[in-house]
Amino acid sequence: MDLNNQASKTKFTDFPYVSGPHRNLMVDLVSTLETRLGSQLLPCTLPPDVQYYQNETGTNHASLHIRSGLASSPVDFILGSWLHCELPTGGALNITSLSSYLNQTTDAPNFLLELIQSSPTSLVLILDLPPRKDLVLHPDYLQTFYQDTQLDTPRQRLDKLAEAKPYFSSSLYIRSVVSPTAILVRIEAEADGQGQSLEEIIENHVGPIAKEVLGVWLDKCACGKREVEEDERAYLKKRDDLIKRKTIEIDLGSNFPRLFGPDAADRVLGAIKEVYRV
Amino acid sequence: MDLNNQASKTKFTDFPYVSGPHRNLMVDLVSTLETRLGSQLLPCTLPPDVQYYQNETGTNHASLHIRSGLASSPVDFILGSWLHCELPTGGALNITSLSSYLNQTTDAPNFLLELIQSSPTSLVLILDLPPRKDLVLHPDYLQTFYQDTQLDTPRQRLDKLAEAKPYFSSSLYIRSVVSPTAILVRIEAEADGQGQSLEEIIENHVGPIAKEVLGVWLDKCACGKREVEEDERAYLKKRDDLIKRKTIEIDLGSNFPRLFGPDAADRVLGAIKEVYRV
Repeated sequence: MDLNNQASKTKFTDFPYVSGPHRNLMVDLVSTLETRLGSQLLPCTLPPDVQYYQNETGTNHASLHIRSGLASSPVDFILGSWLHCELPTGGALNITSLSSYLNQTTDAPNFLLELIQSSPTSLVLILDLPPRKDLVLHPDYLQTFYQDTQLDTPRQRLDKLAEAKPYFSSSLYIRSVVSPTAILVRIEAEADGQGQSLEEIIENHVGPIAKEVLGVWLDKCACGKREVEEDERAYLKKRDDLIKRKTIEIDLGSNFPRLFGPDAADRVLGAIKEVYRV
Repeated sequence: MDLNNQASKTKFTDFPYVSGPHRNLMVDLVSTLETRLGSQLLPCTLPPDVQYYQNETGTNHASLHIRSGLASSPVDFILGSWLHCELPTGGALNITSLSSYLNQTTDAPNFLLELIQSSPTSLVLILDLPPRKDLVLHPDYLQTFYQDTQLDTPRQRLDKLAEAKPYFSSSLYIRSVVSPTAILVRIEAEADGQGQSLEEIIENHVGPIAKEVLGVWLDKCACGKREVEEDERAYLKKRDDLIKRKTIEIDLGSNFPRLFGPDAADRVLGAIKEVYRV
């Protein structure tokens, strides 16, 4: 296999290592997001070796996709990625993610989706509109974005699925960042062909719920008008930046050099820090 | 049964309607708290008809116990209660609780314990040190009180219990108030005598964990020295007061008049608002 040739051909939206339903869902979500926000987004200008990269031995592959919002848009940027890593135990780890960050002209929540598949039958789903304010001090904000939007209903629906169990991130900081309606579940499909397969669960349960939550985010957050005073913008910036710095520290900063070597990790983290502006 | 006579005889620490292990646990926790903080606490000065009260028909009984901290103490007050309500469906609802609030000379977390038993085999446990700051903006605070104290370990231990399932409060505000290491579980013991009874689970699992978490609170929060600047005290007061007002609104304010009639509800809520100073 010619890896350089593969690199030039592999696109973010190919999602080449995941199942059909998983790929279809990601393509659908990216397409919904980019169609709805398209006129507010600049093209992806990442260098080719950040849009697609791999480790030296060719066991780990990944793609990054970032589009910044126009200066006139409340969208700061959207960020999509996929990652495929062969596991030393056999099998592979596949992560696909899509997130969308708003800038400080609005205080509306961001969008966050992550699908972490560590075996053919096991999936962790993280799906949330992370709040950008302390909800305890701002019950009106909680009411507007989480209560009135009935965001707990899709969480409850998935909670009823026998294969889904609540998932607790090992990072207490990540647990603090998410909203009280966050969907954090580990789905374990049965390996013996009894019951639904993971592909069926993605198609019939995860997919509809992810689309519903993205729809709420697009309607109420990305396209909802909010007034933000000057001093509140400074507060939002401080909180937004801290979350970005901590996310890099907890997640990417420790794992990327190990998975892709120092050079690729530097390139990719550099591109993320640039758009994060931290 | 002479209800007035019963009223004068029934004490908070009697916990007269719950099982032996449940009662022993509550008595142990109250005693640990009052022994350790005793010299900082004023006696309970609630009127007798607030220390013990009931509804007109004598189906619902409750007790409230409040001791304020001395002016020199970081303890604002401790609040204990129990409640017994006959259910229209037969059976009874029994709630016992113990909480401890610090004042604004410290920013350390509060202590919160609630045991909600709605049937002989079903128990909801709420056990937490609710933070008094936005953890997203204060990762050092998260590190000090939740990471370094390893407060997630007892949560994980209880999570492994087959009879325990994560519990989600119906109030999104309450979900926002608790910490990322909060223990929020519904324990369903088997009714058929197979496996552990609820009493055994309280004695062997809930009890040791509740004592451990109270120990952390006493060592690191009630007795740990913290420096709090003047402007931060105003922030803490705003946040503390908002939580108290919302707690009354969500929980007590709507349920007490229904369960105990308007007169008893007014008396008891009045006493709570007085110590809450909201």
